[in-house]
Amino acid sequence: MSSPSSANSAIDAASRARDLPAIEIEERVRYAETDGMGIAHHKNYFVWFEVGRTEYCRRRGLTYREVEGLGFFSVVVEASCLYKKPLRYDDQFIIRTVLREATLKKFVFVYDVLRKDDREVLATGHTVHITVNRQGRASQLPPEVLETLLGPEKT
Amino acid sequence: MSSPSSANSAIDAASRARDLPAIEIEERVRYAETDGMGIAHHKNYFVWFEVGRTEYCRRRGLTYREVEGLGFFSVVVEASCLYKKPLRYDDQFIIRTVLREATLKKFVFVYDVLRKDDREVLATGHTVHITVNRQGRASQLPPEVLETLLGPEKT
Amino acid sequence: MSSPSSANSAIDAASRARDLPAIEIEERVRYAETDGMGIAHHKNYFVWFEVGRTEYCRRRGLTYREVEGLGFFSVVVEASCLYKKPLRYDDQFIIRTVLREATLKKFVFVYDVLRKDDREVLATGHTVHITVNRQGRASQLPPEVLETLLGPEKT
Amino acid sequence: MSSPSSANSAIDAASRARDLPAIEIEERVRYAETDGMGIAHHKNYFVWFEVGRTEYCRRRGLTYREVEGLGFFSVVVEASCLYKKPLRYDDQFIIRTVLREATLKKFVFVYDVLRKDDREVLATGHTVHITVNRQGRASQLPPEVLETLLGPEKT
Repeated sequence: MSSPSSANSAIDAASRARDLPAIEIEERVRYAETDGMGIAHHKNYFVWFEVGRTEYCRRRGLTYREVEGLGFFSVVVEASCLYKKPLRYDDQFIIRTVLREATLKKFVFVYDVLRKDDREVLATGHTVHITVNRQGRASQLPPEVLETLLGPEKT
Repeated sequence: MSSPSSANSAIDAASRARDLPAIEIEERVRYAETDGMGIAHHKNYFVWFEVGRTEYCRRRGLTYREVEGLGFFSVVVEASCLYKKPLRYDDQFIIRTVLREATLKKFVFVYDVLRKDDREVLATGHTVHITVNRQGRASQLPPEVLETLLGPEKT
Repeated sequence: MSSPSSANSAIDAASRARDLPAIEIEERVRYAETDGMGIAHHKNYFVWFEVGRTEYCRRRGLTYREVEGLGFFSVVVEASCLYKKPLRYDDQFIIRTVLREATLKKFVFVYDVLRKDDREVLATGHTVHITVNRQGRASQLPPEVLETLLGPEKT
Repeated sequence: MSSPSSANSAIDAASRARDLPAIEIEERVRYAETDGMGIAHHKNYFVWFEVGRTEYCRRRGLTYREVEGLGFFSVVVEASCLYKKPLRYDDQFIIRTVLREATLKKFVFVYDVLRKDDREVLATGHTVHITVNRQGRASQLPPEVLETLLGPEKT
């Protein structure tokens, strides 16, 4: 039986796989995202990951909004984050997003959060998504949507 | 190399360990916690876990606020959640919190989110915390604080 | 031209109108609701107001979820809050909710946030809501829904 | 006694005052910011206003973080928003921020949220802030900080 730590190291390693295309976006820590310790509250990383994968899709010519318009929804079934160093109010950071696995039924995204200045990795995470229909039942994406997601960035 | 799924199953199993004391609190899904799919957004589970461990401490006669008052802070270094079935607006649910590991330097909490009606487990998660001082450096809790956390519930 | 302050004093006064029925619920400040200043972030009061009006409806035998099930949605068109004294992590507080005005098309709720211990008023606010249909167009509630909201608490 | 509506109209008018310098920033609605109605939840506008005033300060060569470093904190004592048309997931919008009043003790910011495409005003709001010291007591900003805020944008 593996411990959570060893699994997270696995995720961590995977997220640095250099053979998969990554996209990067820049954000700043909002004051509303800090907590009583003066650091970004850990829940926000999951929001930032979501912003990262939204942009991943957009750069491939697909908005998640269009996918929902077709009647397909992506439900998060698993999410994790390893926090190495904190972010503070107004800090600039980069969210690096990689689509590690994708089938018609399931997606796995991995993420790194990097300090903007020196690109030190401050946090690493992953999310697993399954495709459901309007009724919330397990479903399959149209193959052309999957192809677009697996294809190159559009410019 | 273990996959995230297998690790999460491990966490899952651990959280049901019946030999460790658990505390339960009840909450309802707030409208502000739902998202465009009409379900509770996955980030909120990490907020609910935090509410659960706050209560875990309180029932042992210790408030996390007092711990911070002593100059010790608990920083989240790892967090995960497995989502099995969604929660909707106004749904009543139970957060079951177990302190799985505790040393002067590190804590591991595991959580189940259960539907109130039938106690079906809807989600399972874990968080790992390390103790830091006011300067954000790794530190150790006073032993009496640890003893209180490992002790029985006060009534 | 009136200033925002004078208007808010008006709201304030109104919310203490003793002739309208009020309901009270108790909450505690969650750690995730605090910010870098160590106090509850001002956005959360609007979330708490929402929890208050959800409970206002429920105590009259009506869940907002049922109203949405009938195809009617309540859209916030105005919201304000006056903050007098801050709330900190783990503080217990009361949200006092009054339905100040209600027609088939429009609702006005007013709120007080009180410290639990001594019932000192820490914040006061209001929200205005209009009824829309599934298409987002201005609509009217079924008269029986309005009657229920204006009626007495059920036990 | 003025109604909340008339006061908000006053704020509304003020925020369009063309003689005060405004800054604009662009954002997109995050999925986590939507609610069960599929629109951006009303609490988020207060977070966006905060992002707007942070940027207002930064463009004048002052970060709010530096101000806190000097031992001065800006506490929100009043906040309001008028919502005219909703924003949906992934919509691009502009936050227009104006510093309407500023003294050593008190600040008033007003905001417009505009749809990016056609610059239609979707929401309007205001916040009032007072200066406090580390102990949370009413205080006064150093005059040079106020001068910077009232001065021109730096490039």
